[in-house]
Parts: sequence; structure tokens; C-alpha cells
Amino acid sequence: MTDIDPWGDVEIADYSATMEGFGIEPIGPLADRLPDNRLVRRGIVFGQRDLETVLDARDRGDPFAVMTGLMPSGVFHFGHLAVVEQVRMFQEMGAEVTLCAADIEAYATRDVSLEDARELVVEEYLLNYVAAGLDLDRTDFYFQSGAGNDHLARSKLFSRYITENEFEATYGATSPGKISSALTQYADILRPQAPENGGPKPTVVPVGIDQDPHVRLTRDVASRYRETAYVKPASTYHRFMRGLQGGKMSSSDPASYIALTDTVEDAKRKIDAAKTGGRASVEEHREKGGTVEDDMVFELLAFHLVRDDDELERIRRKYESGAMLSGELKQIAKERLETFLRDHQEKREAARPDVERYLAEHGFGEAT
Amino acid sequence: MTDIDPWGDVEIADYSATMEGFGIEPIGPLADRLPDNRLVRRGIVFGQRDLETVLDARDRGDPFAVMTGLMPSGVFHFGHLAVVEQVRMFQEMGAEVTLCAADIEAYATRDVSLEDARELVVEEYLLNYVAAGLDLDRTDFYFQSGAGNDHLARSKLFSRYITENEFEATYGATSPGKISSALTQYADILRPQAPENGGPKPTVVPVGIDQDPHVRLTRDVASRYRETAYVKPASTYHRFMRGLQGGKMSSSDPASYIALTDTVEDAKRKIDAAKTGGRASVEEHREKGGTVEDDMVFELLAFHLVRDDDELERIRRKYESGAMLSGELKQIAKERLETFLRDHQEKREAARPDVERYLAEHGFGEAT
Repeated sequence: MTDIDPWGDVEIADYSATMEGFGIEPIGPLADRLPDNRLVRRGIVFGQRDLETVLDARDRGDPFAVMTGLMPSGVFHFGHLAVVEQVRMFQEMGAEVTLCAADIEAYATRDVSLEDARELVVEEYLLNYVAAGLDLDRTDFYFQSGAGNDHLARSKLFSRYITENEFEATYGATSPGKISSALTQYADILRPQAPENGGPKPTVVPVGIDQDPHVRLTRDVASRYRETAYVKPASTYHRFMRGLQGGKMSSSDPASYIALTDTVEDAKRKIDAAKTGGRASVEEHREKGGTVEDDMVFELLAFHLVRDDDELERIRRKYESGAMLSGELKQIAKERLETFLRDHQEKREAARPDVERYLAEHGFGEAT
Repeated sequence: MTDIDPWGDVEIADYSATMEGFGIEPIGPLADRLPDNRLVRRGIVFGQRDLETVLDARDRGDPFAVMTGLMPSGVFHFGHLAVVEQVRMFQEMGAEVTLCAADIEAYATRDVSLEDARELVVEEYLLNYVAAGLDLDRTDFYFQSGAGNDHLARSKLFSRYITENEFEATYGATSPGKISSALTQYADILRPQAPENGGPKPTVVPVGIDQDPHVRLTRDVASRYRETAYVKPASTYHRFMRGLQGGKMSSSDPASYIALTDTVEDAKRKIDAAKTGGRASVEEHREKGGTVEDDMVFELLAFHLVRDDDELERIRRKYESGAMLSGELKQIAKERLETFLRDHQEKREAARPDVERYLAEHGFGEAT
């Protein structure tokens, strides 16, 4: 079983082993019950647990929810888009949306002040979420630090239902900050099902596999908690984009990612410096072709920048055949990136008044 | 250094070693700055840390506070009275009083439901506290489960300031329930100093030595927390009454204590069954005298039932000289106990309407 640390930067080499170890199923035939979706078609969203509970509720016309959290400890980059797109998809399917700004966790485990967290949440997350299509007015957005008496008290009551051994087996040795944060996350994940939010309902949490330990223990809490009933939360799993220079994409290494607020010039420079699957010489490349699996520029195209499958396939073939050079692939990426960023950043600024109005209306106008 | 487990039933054999190990000072000359007090005179309250911060504030006419918590996991017995009497003393000196009902802790570490905890708090604690002289209308009483968003969020923020090593060194290996409860206790102890309660002020927490680990780590949190200022909390320490049959007094063993709601008949039976320091035969007793140090009945007289020092001294001399038999000592105890319990239980019932009014006025009318 692969060890997973939800607080670390994790690169999962072997998704199948991880899936098997933790009882994660492939999306498989459930794909047909989801709206047609690039992430699923391309295997970027590759796994799920109990997703049918959510789809069944949708089919029956019963309430269901999608929940996600954001950790305000850095900028919003392309690696974050897979979650946002799924949240938007489930919202369009009729899910209630719960969006948690994990400012207590950032404070306790990443040394981010509440003030800095608040600014990051607004500037890096909310504006980008809305620009990416989230309907904030139909979202239960909250900061952990303002989650409410009952929510925070519940996270402490949940502590009864996880033993020390389970905690250590799941997370390894952990600091008070991490234990306390994990308990908060269980309440966050179960928030759509809280009495004040209408009680038990199927809920899906789109996560990277590194967050699965939280999902698993939340499922244990959901089935053991005696005060109110919970449906065990479902989850989907997406592949991590790798960093632009190969290896992991890390918020602490700006060369490894393109932020959605990067200038077009900076973004293009990062593409120029990215690791490709091209050959050592033009001659060799023409002869043997590029390797898309090792090409971080192709990965960016495949994850986000080329929406049409046929077009992506044409690019792949030309690149693998050697007809397209790495420089030409980069040129395509830079053009798409420029269009994407200009469009996104325009939407971002258009979203600003709405986000500010939402924050003011919900009493988040001032940092506390 | 003596190991202390704040969640266990602890018998501290050697108070001096414990005091030295943890930097607890004797009450010493500070006794002169306290109201004349049986518990201090008799060395029942034997130690303190930073108590002068509270006395200095009192002398300057500045705000100061006394804080205590109650764990609703059993009945209220004579072993609990030393804390209540100190709280009343500090309240009469002008301290703001904060009284915490630790229902989350009882739930997470003792498997007590919130409903049972609520009933125990009212029936076993509030009524007895008020009967023992606490002025509830000048008390910030709260349940942890309703401590408020900011209080509960703060307890989570505090987790940043205690390392895993400090936690383990202080408490030993601990479950999520205990870690989460300890963090709640830090917020409880610092509650009188919270921004919503007027900010930093000297605060004294009367505790048994078993609770000192919480006080020590709260002092660390108080000095490390960056968001708002705190004065490190002060503390007083009292000797534990031993159980009626020798050994420890334990809430899980009704023969070991006399509850303040015991019937006079039950209480007398417990005295009859109590361990004494008498000799094996009347002849031997007349010759050698009783040993007050080994006499649980004398301990009860000395702690609570005989308020006059001269009278207690006369009883001691007669008992140690052999002039008084254990049966006669028990007879004195039973008479005093009857008076004490009848008076206390009368005050308890007289307090009921006030307690119910207080609970209703403060929104605690219904269990949540």
C-alpha cells in the first residue's frame, strides 16, 4: 500500500496500486451517467468511490452535494483546475455546492496568518473559481475560522470516533496542528449533511489521491457518529499534472506551474523552459518522434489547453511521428495559453464586483 | 519528575517532588494577601504558580479572573469542594468568574452523551456550586459545545503553537479525542482574556495537580500566540482528599466518596465503613492512640466538616492520645455530616429556581 501524506507534496507513481490498496474504483461505466466531460474522457479523472450514490440521488431528484476545500497557502494554478471543473460540473447537474476556505488549517500547518489567508482566498481562489464558472450565489462558501459554533464543536465531537491507532496508521505520526486540522476537515466534508444544512444526503468530494486519507477517516466518522445520521461521502480522484520541468508541481516552486494570474509573458517564458519529450537533435526527432508521456507541454495541452479530442489526437500523432518539433508544440501551447489567460483574466476582473458583493452580503466584508 | 495523567485517577504520593519538578511554589507569604481561609491555613491548598499576578491586580484595582472547568462525568462529592470554595473566595475578592462545563471533553474522552452531560452539569454541578456560594449571575458559565465560533476556532489556532514532541512529553501518547480536548481546554483557560471578554488580565485557575499539564501548555500557548496578547495563567494547587476506604477517591467507586446529594443515611453508612487510623483493639487504642494521617474520617473533618481550627486540634489530640475511639470520631463525623448535608441540600433546592432562570435567560433552556 502506498503511503500518502495529505500534508506533503506527493507524486503518485502507480495509481493502480494506490487504487487497489484503498478500495478506489475506476470511473468505468459511470462515465455514461456523467455529463460528457473532457477530464473523464481523457482519464484525468480516473477513479471514484461510491459515486453512484450521488448519481442515483440525481436520477431520483433527491438532494445531493459536492464539497471541496481550498488551502489558502499559495497561488491558483493549472493544477487546481481539475477540481474546479468538477465542482462546476456537479453544480450544473444540480448539486448543492459547499466550498471551504481552510484558513485554520493554513494557519496551523503552513504558518499562514488569518489575514494573509483571507487575501489569498479572495484573490487567488474565489475570483478564479468564479472566472472558471462557479456560481457563487448557489454556493455555501465559508472560512473554517467562521464555520460556526456547531460546525466547530462537531469537529471536536468527531474525535471520539477515531482511535489513536487509526490516526497513526492513516497519517503516520502527526502534530497537534495536523490532528486538529484533520478533525476540522471531517466536519468540513460532512457539512452539506449537517442538520442545519438539511441533513444526510449523498455528497461527492473531488480530491487528489493525496487527500484520500481525510476522505477515508471521514467515512469512518460518518458511519460511527451517533448524534445525527450521515451518508458516507463519495469521492472522485484526478491525476496530478506534473510540474513544467518534470517531477512534481509544487506551489513553492513557481517554475513548476503556470498560475492563472501569471502574465502572458511569464507564462510563455515558463513554456520555453519546460521539459519536453523531444529528441536531442532535430535529425533524431524527425527520425524517432517525440515522446508525449515525457512532455510537460503536451500534458498541459491534454489537461486543459486543447478541448477538442480530435485536434489533440492530430497533435499527438504529428509529434510522435516526428513531423512536429518540440518548438512547434511549444508554439501551439503559447498561443493557446495566451488566449486562455487573457480570457480567464478578463472573466476574473468581471467577477470581482460579484465576489465583493457576495462577501459583503455574507458578512465576510472585513477580516476578523 | 512524577508522571501526571490529567485523564486518569491520580494519587500523588510526594507533592514536594512534583512541585519541584514543575516549578510550583508554596503558597508561603502570599497567604497573608488572601482572605483568611481554612484551606490555605490547613495546607490543603498548598501550592501556586504566579498567584501574585492576580493579587497585584486586585491591589491595583485592575480586572482579574478566576477560571475553572467541571467535567460532567459523575456526581459532585466532597473531593470537588476545594475548587468551589476557592472560586467563591476569588469571586468575593472581586474576580470575574468563568465556569466551563466540559461537555465536549466528557463526550470525547469519557463516552458521556451531550444530553447526559447537560443533565449532570445542572443537577450535579450548577446546583451544588450555587448552594456552595457561587454567584451565578456574576459568572460567565458556558458549555464547551456552545462556547461560540471564536472560542472554538481559537482552540484550533492554538494547535500551531504546541509541537508533537511537547505534547507527547507532557501527556504521553494520546488519542485524537484527548488532543482535541486539550486544545479546547487551552481556549477555556484563556477565555477570560479573550478579546470579547475584555482582553488580557491576570487569571488564576485552581486545580488539582493532575490538571497541571493543561496549565503548563496553556502558559506556553499564552506566551506564543501572536494574534492577541495573553497573560500567562496563574494557578493554585490543592491536596486530593483520599477515598473513604483509603487509596484514591474515584468517581467510579461510590464507596470512596460522599456525594453532596447522598442521603444522610447513605452518608452515615459510608462513614461506618470508612478506613480509620484506630488500633486493632480498644485496649491498644487507649494505650497507643489513633493515627490521624491514616484516618479517612479525620481527613473529612479536617478538609470540610470542622471549620474551627481549635476544635479540630482538640479532636486530634483526643484521638491521638487514645482518649477518643474511632467509633467516637465517626460519631462526630456523622453528626457534622448530617448538619452539613441537610443545610447544603436545602440550599441546593433553594438554588434550583435561580439556576433554571439563569439557564433560560442565557439560552441554555433546552438541550441542543
